[in-house]
Amino acid sequence: MTILTITGYKGGIGKSTTAFHLAAYFSDLGKTILVDGDPNRTAVKWAGRSEEPLPFTVADERQAMRIIPGADFIVIDTPARPNSDDLKELAKGCDLLILPTSPDIVSLEPMLDTARDLEGSKYRALITVVPPHPSREGELMREDLREGGIPVFETMIRRTVGFAKAALAGRPIRDIEDARARGAWDDYKALGDEVKEIIR
Amino acid sequence: MTILTITGYKGGIGKSTTAFHLAAYFSDLGKTILVDGDPNRTAVKWAGRSEEPLPFTVADERQAMRIIPGADFIVIDTPARPNSDDLKELAKGCDLLILPTSPDIVSLEPMLDTARDLEGSKYRALITVVPPHPSREGELMREDLREGGIPVFETMIRRTVGFAKAALAGRPIRDIEDARARGAWDDYKALGDEVKEIIR
Repeated sequence: MTILTITGYKGGIGKSTTAFHLAAYFSDLGKTILVDGDPNRTAVKWAGRSEEPLPFTVADERQAMRIIPGADFIVIDTPARPNSDDLKELAKGCDLLILPTSPDIVSLEPMLDTARDLEGSKYRALITVVPPHPSREGELMREDLREGGIPVFETMIRRTVGFAKAALAGRPIRDIEDARARGAWDDYKALGDEVKEIIR
Repeated sequence: MTILTITGYKGGIGKSTTAFHLAAYFSDLGKTILVDGDPNRTAVKWAGRSEEPLPFTVADERQAMRIIPGADFIVIDTPARPNSDDLKELAKGCDLLILPTSPDIVSLEPMLDTARDLEGSKYRALITVVPPHPSREGELMREDLREGGIPVFETMIRRTVGFAKAALAGRPIRDIEDARARGAWDDYKALGDEVKEIIR
């Protein structure tokens, strides 16, 4: 059983979107459960809008204990703004802690603090909501984080309206017919490949 | 796998004590894990003071997913003061929801509200912190709850300083050498028997 936990120090940085799409990715590889521990229940609501069953199960954290035995992959979405104690405890409970962050200067400082809290834990920063070419904000953020000693995924998740469409349809973005949506799924596929490499 | 969830609308009503002692009871019957979901981490701290291993595992909720596969019994301690939405979701996630309450008139009203929220769910009220004979507060509370249509355990948990000693020693009260402590363990044993009857 592999456990991936997604958390972030603020909202709007693709935390639940990342949890949802990693669950989609890993559902191709084994029985996958997405545990929604965010009080907003974004993932539960997302799944609730789907007209057809998803390839993974989305469970409210208050019902998760009942269904997780037998799962191969568990993706946990958590509340935003964990405190530093929480972060360490979350990291202990999973195989990889993933911290999405948007590529802006105000996000850099909290990520560097986070890195201090997580020293010695298995985690990666993930740059999300990346503005399209020719913006270099994503690359610059990645360089800044690496200079700060923070392990960061090579893959970045591009900003696209496709995610809003996907959320409305209750599906992962790979099910949305749209060229840019396909690009966004490619990002999550690349992320899944990277995660698989790290946890094996 | 049997899941018992303990919750309460306020602190100081024996919630964590009940979780700890039901875990002790069920550890005689199978592999038992106590998941500490109370932000105070009372159960984790209680277990941390024990000099010898307990017959059950106490896990911080943030690490629970990793260890619960393979457990026969899971006892979940939750934050006090769940809202009504929480209560229903908690009840869906377990085989029996247990609501400790002290036997006083100010506790009656919130229990009646709770019962309304939980209509149709599998739950029982548990009267705890019961003052010693000749006080009849416990029996009166039980009658009041039953009149209010609330399912309530026949067993009541008597108030005793033995619980403080047990907490300090990091052990269940059955390990404390003291005549009154033995009486308190008898209460939890009777409670465990009742729970076993309900969930089977």
